[in-house]
Amino acid sequence: MKKRLFTPGPISVPEEVLLEMAKPIIHHRTPEFLAIAEETFKSLKYFFQTENDVLILASSGTGAMEAAVVNTISPGDSAVVISAGKFGERFAELVKTYGGNVILHEPGWGNPADIKLIEKTLNENPSIKAVFATLVETSTGTIYDIESIGNTVARHPNAIFIVDAISGLGAVPCYTDKWGIDILVSGSQKALSLPPGLAFVSVSPKAWKRIEDTKTPRYYYDLRKYRKAATKFDFPYTMAVSLVIGLRKSLQIIQQETLEVLWERHRKRAEAVRNAAAAMGLSIFSRAPSDAVTAILLPEGIDGEKLCSEMRKSFGMSVAGGQDALRGKVVRISHFGWQDEFDTIAVLSALEVMLKRFGYPVNNGIGVKAAISVLFG
Amino acid sequence: MKKRLFTPGPISVPEEVLLEMAKPIIHHRTPEFLAIAEETFKSLKYFFQTENDVLILASSGTGAMEAAVVNTISPGDSAVVISAGKFGERFAELVKTYGGNVILHEPGWGNPADIKLIEKTLNENPSIKAVFATLVETSTGTIYDIESIGNTVARHPNAIFIVDAISGLGAVPCYTDKWGIDILVSGSQKALSLPPGLAFVSVSPKAWKRIEDTKTPRYYYDLRKYRKAATKFDFPYTMAVSLVIGLRKSLQIIQQETLEVLWERHRKRAEAVRNAAAAMGLSIFSRAPSDAVTAILLPEGIDGEKLCSEMRKSFGMSVAGGQDALRGKVVRISHFGWQDEFDTIAVLSALEVMLKRFGYPVNNGIGVKAAISVLFG
Repeated sequence: MKKRLFTPGPISVPEEVLLEMAKPIIHHRTPEFLAIAEETFKSLKYFFQTENDVLILASSGTGAMEAAVVNTISPGDSAVVISAGKFGERFAELVKTYGGNVILHEPGWGNPADIKLIEKTLNENPSIKAVFATLVETSTGTIYDIESIGNTVARHPNAIFIVDAISGLGAVPCYTDKWGIDILVSGSQKALSLPPGLAFVSVSPKAWKRIEDTKTPRYYYDLRKYRKAATKFDFPYTMAVSLVIGLRKSLQIIQQETLEVLWERHRKRAEAVRNAAAAMGLSIFSRAPSDAVTAILLPEGIDGEKLCSEMRKSFGMSVAGGQDALRGKVVRISHFGWQDEFDTIAVLSALEVMLKRFGYPVNNGIGVKAAISVLFG
Repeated sequence: MKKRLFTPGPISVPEEVLLEMAKPIIHHRTPEFLAIAEETFKSLKYFFQTENDVLILASSGTGAMEAAVVNTISPGDSAVVISAGKFGERFAELVKTYGGNVILHEPGWGNPADIKLIEKTLNENPSIKAVFATLVETSTGTIYDIESIGNTVARHPNAIFIVDAISGLGAVPCYTDKWGIDILVSGSQKALSLPPGLAFVSVSPKAWKRIEDTKTPRYYYDLRKYRKAATKFDFPYTMAVSLVIGLRKSLQIIQQETLEVLWERHRKRAEAVRNAAAAMGLSIFSRAPSDAVTAILLPEGIDGEKLCSEMRKSFGMSVAGGQDALRGKVVRISHFGWQDEFDTIAVLSALEVMLKRFGYPVNNGIGVKAAISVLFG
């Protein structure tokens, strides 16, 4: 059976990248690999839209989130964490784990942040050391207004702005420098169309100052070591070389296509899915839906876990169910990774057929029709 | 130019493993991947020679060393660290970083440990919580008598025994359970013949008890989360799926061949290199040379850094130079990874030719002759 991945990571990897990674391994401290690393470090700045250092870690995305926390939060430091889903909660857990004092901003799952309230919190607590936000909350498909939050944090010289863009970067616009993001975290298995195993962290000069002053012990995730090594396009510990080789290829493809074109493609695919859902009589869970991943609310009485499992078994289509409170209630479709318009049509037609099999009335092709109108006019 | 890797990681990866990893990505929470993970977790127990849990981390080997430390050492805890090279030093740095009190056992680079002295230290300090050792110290090519150290530690119920076997496991005999190793750490880019990016940690029941009591904060490397997920053949964070797929294949090859055969092959290749060095009038740096990696002392006046660089440029042969105090003074040849007897002969002939070009008198074929005698009788 042909397999298609619409899970919000891992995603499908282009054959040309898979084959690049299948080439014989080269040592990580050879001129050959250093040249690859040099090119990759430079292209990452474009991908991040930043002049800041962008560092590469051999780790899951969560490891890079941990790096953002242990390098900036000393025990007793206060930090605002915008938490409205599984990954916002993860930042809060991390800050607590390392002795930070978490001031939760909880608009509720699927809801945008209340920026005025965040501003008020910052004004009332000038000791706040950091604000943690998520660009796209994968668990709900919600996009956050990072630009406005960044502008707010920038008015507070004591606070740095840390953003988890693991699921968003490359799928939706994100301007690290223009938006005042001091630390941006991302991962390989999303819009970069790579296998999981690499994570990335950009660090602003303001954040480097904080990092020097932070008291929390750290070793593997001590970003100062990565910065030092990166000046020679090197890494402090043995790097996952095959993934970096894939990364270079993937960034080459993205630079050639340009981020603007990439974002527009995600926007269209996401709009196609939203319109298709509406045509099928279904709602989108999020009140601020992202173009990276869409969470569609399932009709009452349909078991989302079963539906996802059947989609995979019958059609080879991997879509994601809901997590925690949303378990069984939504189906999540990602728009990133190596997919095109016809993949979007394929997953929507599979969803139509499966909903019908689960007893929900769907006129054949009604969702697909709406999608085609968005995708091809 | 044809390229050959004799660096002590990363190493060459068999084509069949590279191609396995180049297959289309599958999601990490599908029945298909869970079946792969289940098989892999089981085979890892064979590879580790243990009934203990063996956990898989998306990380460099150093990350797994960090996991061994942050899960077992609380601030103020005392630990003996056997440190006679770069990687022993790394354990000492890690323990210090997280507030532990390091009791250094330093026999000197290239020298074996003094087990009676370790026993004395343990007897005099019943509060010692752990002993850290290295199976094969990559920086010097030295093997440590883990069995005897394990027997010693086992007589001290308060102490657990933690071994870095990143460079040794699969290359030389190592019986986790029989030798009383509570935590064994390894990595993918050595005898497993995989790209870097995965690390492994086995944990004994005695170590789990300690882990529950440890006060050091941890999140990404909290081994309890990995154990919980592993009961369902799952991972707490997005796993590097392509590397795990390669790992399954690599473990299948090893199980088919058996560890005993694998060890014997390493032993022969290492002996061939040692005898060849002797025939060329060169000494081995280590006083207890391992069969995983050999450090050959270079003649006075030959710049080892230059020699390694020329080996790569002229012959496509990657061998390693020395680190820190050994910089420029040794050439290190690994015996693990995807290599056979003829690769050993190839690297030795290249070394002969290059030494001659650097002005050291070598009769053509003198080292190779000694190697062939070991390899083929």
